[in-house]
Amino acid sequence: MKTILILGAGLSASSMIRYLLQHCEKENWRLRIVDRDKNRILSLINNNQHAEALDFDATVPSVRLAEIENADLVISMLPARFHVEVAEDCIRARKNLITPSYISPEMKALNQKAIDAGITIMNEIGVDPGIDHMSAMKIIDKIKDNGDTLHSFKSFCGGLVAEEHDNNPWRYKFTWNPRNVVLAGKGGTAMFLDNHKFKYIPYNRLFDRLDRITIPGHGKFVGYPNRDSLSYQETYGLKGIATLYRGTLRRPNFCKGFNVFIELGMTDDSFAMANASQISPRDFLNAFLPYIPNLSVEDKFKYFLREDRMYLYDQFEWLGVFDDDTDFGFEGATPAKLLEKLMVRKMSLSNEDKDMLVMYHEFEFEQDGKNKKIVSSMISIGEDPTYTAMSNTVGLPIAISARMILNDQINVKGVTLPIQKEIYEPILKSLEENGIIFNEYESEL
Amino acid sequence: MKTILILGAGLSASSMIRYLLQHCEKENWRLRIVDRDKNRILSLINNNQHAEALDFDATVPSVRLAEIENADLVISMLPARFHVEVAEDCIRARKNLITPSYISPEMKALNQKAIDAGITIMNEIGVDPGIDHMSAMKIIDKIKDNGDTLHSFKSFCGGLVAEEHDNNPWRYKFTWNPRNVVLAGKGGTAMFLDNHKFKYIPYNRLFDRLDRITIPGHGKFVGYPNRDSLSYQETYGLKGIATLYRGTLRRPNFCKGFNVFIELGMTDDSFAMANASQISPRDFLNAFLPYIPNLSVEDKFKYFLREDRMYLYDQFEWLGVFDDDTDFGFEGATPAKLLEKLMVRKMSLSNEDKDMLVMYHEFEFEQDGKNKKIVSSMISIGEDPTYTAMSNTVGLPIAISARMILNDQINVKGVTLPIQKEIYEPILKSLEENGIIFNEYESEL
Repeated sequence: MKTILILGAGLSASSMIRYLLQHCEKENWRLRIVDRDKNRILSLINNNQHAEALDFDATVPSVRLAEIENADLVISMLPARFHVEVAEDCIRARKNLITPSYISPEMKALNQKAIDAGITIMNEIGVDPGIDHMSAMKIIDKIKDNGDTLHSFKSFCGGLVAEEHDNNPWRYKFTWNPRNVVLAGKGGTAMFLDNHKFKYIPYNRLFDRLDRITIPGHGKFVGYPNRDSLSYQETYGLKGIATLYRGTLRRPNFCKGFNVFIELGMTDDSFAMANASQISPRDFLNAFLPYIPNLSVEDKFKYFLREDRMYLYDQFEWLGVFDDDTDFGFEGATPAKLLEKLMVRKMSLSNEDKDMLVMYHEFEFEQDGKNKKIVSSMISIGEDPTYTAMSNTVGLPIAISARMILNDQINVKGVTLPIQKEIYEPILKSLEENGIIFNEYESEL
Repeated sequence: MKTILILGAGLSASSMIRYLLQHCEKENWRLRIVDRDKNRILSLINNNQHAEALDFDATVPSVRLAEIENADLVISMLPARFHVEVAEDCIRARKNLITPSYISPEMKALNQKAIDAGITIMNEIGVDPGIDHMSAMKIIDKIKDNGDTLHSFKSFCGGLVAEEHDNNPWRYKFTWNPRNVVLAGKGGTAMFLDNHKFKYIPYNRLFDRLDRITIPGHGKFVGYPNRDSLSYQETYGLKGIATLYRGTLRRPNFCKGFNVFIELGMTDDSFAMANASQISPRDFLNAFLPYIPNLSVEDKFKYFLREDRMYLYDQFEWLGVFDDDTDFGFEGATPAKLLEKLMVRKMSLSNEDKDMLVMYHEFEFEQDGKNKKIVSSMISIGEDPTYTAMSNTVGLPIAISARMILNDQINVKGVTLPIQKEIYEPILKSLEENGIIFNEYESEL
């Protein structure tokens, strides 16, 4: 019998735990799961005899290490800042580890130690990062193996609301940590390659300069650039490529509207507003509008929007930016925190809503002197509030890779991510069997 | 005989040293001056027998303390980050200290220790901060003493080029640290009070939302908001005031043009550009322009400028943004550093140029039921590249306050700034005698 220790059972862990539970009997596994919210674990494992909810605090090193020593594989779904210390524990105990998070420089520095300990530390194996790597590498390798030349790779991913529930004027509901959505792009200037030129987009233009994308049957999307596309030259082996761009997908209304908040300065998270506890949504907006005597907040906002963006007015009114309720502000609130509260009040998923995960890759390459294009896209719809598209697409690759590691099907040691053919091929195949399917379409340019 | 120890003899020290030298004989002073550039001191003191150029490193605490113990008054013109440790030395040695810099929280925390040591630590006594405080407090106190109610206080200051030398299309030349000019506004969202409402302006709109100011005989200026105007409610005793705004003065062309650089993201100082050492000005601009196939850099820039700002095109062309010279970039250059280099190449003061310091205050108050306005403005023109307006306006208040402290005319102890009548009145009078004169104009609103 093999033991899988799962640290953290938050939003994205449900589908992963379901998959693992489905395989426990056949594979002879037992799951030991810990989370601050024990009731959540109990509801997810639903009396399954192969799983146990634990009681310790996974962020306390001493108790955690004892549990790790008793496991065959550790899956860390803790906040990313804990992954490095968990990895150090796993190296000490010589146990394999999986995390869905980006490899931090500190994590990368553990590579040799992990190799010396003979373990695999598999990272970036959720959806983005994760499925994006695997589905992109599949086509990049295919183009390379065929001796063709890849000129351009653009890739987009976004968590949205499923079309049948996409019923607000922003065309967006939060399917993930709202704070991250409100602070998106704050990490620094976005960088990418466009036709061999380095291009930089500052935060204040991030939601203004959008790529337009249409997915047949699913309508129009736009993409705003992720922070650093340049690093993928190395990760994906694309040195010399002309165009390299990674972005986040949204519906156009969301980006056009959010751009107004950025322009106004309402996404600032660096200071607490004066009188924050008494502020209404109307006061909040007005604090960022020009002072023009005798104009209402509505009229000042219209003046700021300008004629060419006036079609956005209704979606701001719907959001409640002009509301006067004082049960809104709170002590020490930054603009970004107030904006998050304003949006969460109106744009949260209800229990009836389903979410939607969209991934879209575009490859341009030269084959026998001809310019060709491959579009590969995936749309995943959530099942219910527990088994969301986000949870399925994050959790299933983790669970599948867990199965592979326990069955010695992954032989890469050290700190790694799923870009090798022997890893992504079986995982993508298993994902297909679980309904996460990419549509590929090749055409001449 | 009294000894004045001067730490640092940079750009702003020349006029201060000249004033002090002029008073050495009569006041029975001697000056001991240290700077990394000893030749600069020698040229400033020009064999004056009352002054001596020292050889030690003023940033090394041990040797500095010995010098401080032999002085009656210390003036620190070192970079602001050294002021706190100099202040701690002065407390230990019980010697008075003057610095022109803003009172940092660390400096403020030394107040009780300075009081216990019986010394004065006078800060913010250059031009901005310095003359702004004194000239504003003079009128604020006058309005209050008269029993009138101050509703609005707006204050602007800027270092510019004198009109007869103001001969480039940006209407600007660097009269101060260029890096600070390029990074202006990066410290955070600007905050002020406008008709009892808190108002916030993010960096990306700082140079877009300008106050227009006309000074008769000197033409049009614009002001962009300084970071935190709200703190002046307390400093100036203005609790309850409706409008409180402090800003920086420039000519309109400068702000309109610089705003384009901000929009493009070219003031970013947080990352080194790829291929920074090979980059030309043209590459630098292009990296921030949208990629549009078959359009030249000039045409892409025009597209970005839009028709309503096309009048700015010539000033960008003049600046050399389309130039192709590769003797421009350097290893590790951030966008802000490249922009600084681009501007400094074209917009530095020549030896023939004179600079100009402009200060402008606007007060609105109620007197016997009538709304009135006082405008108080000062324009100071530099003498030559050594005795610039910047040097005169920074250095003279320091030197005058040094004289007052040595003659026991300043009795405030602890960490302070020049807002008390008994301090600002004699200093403003001495400044007038030295040609730094405010024009006041009162009118009904």
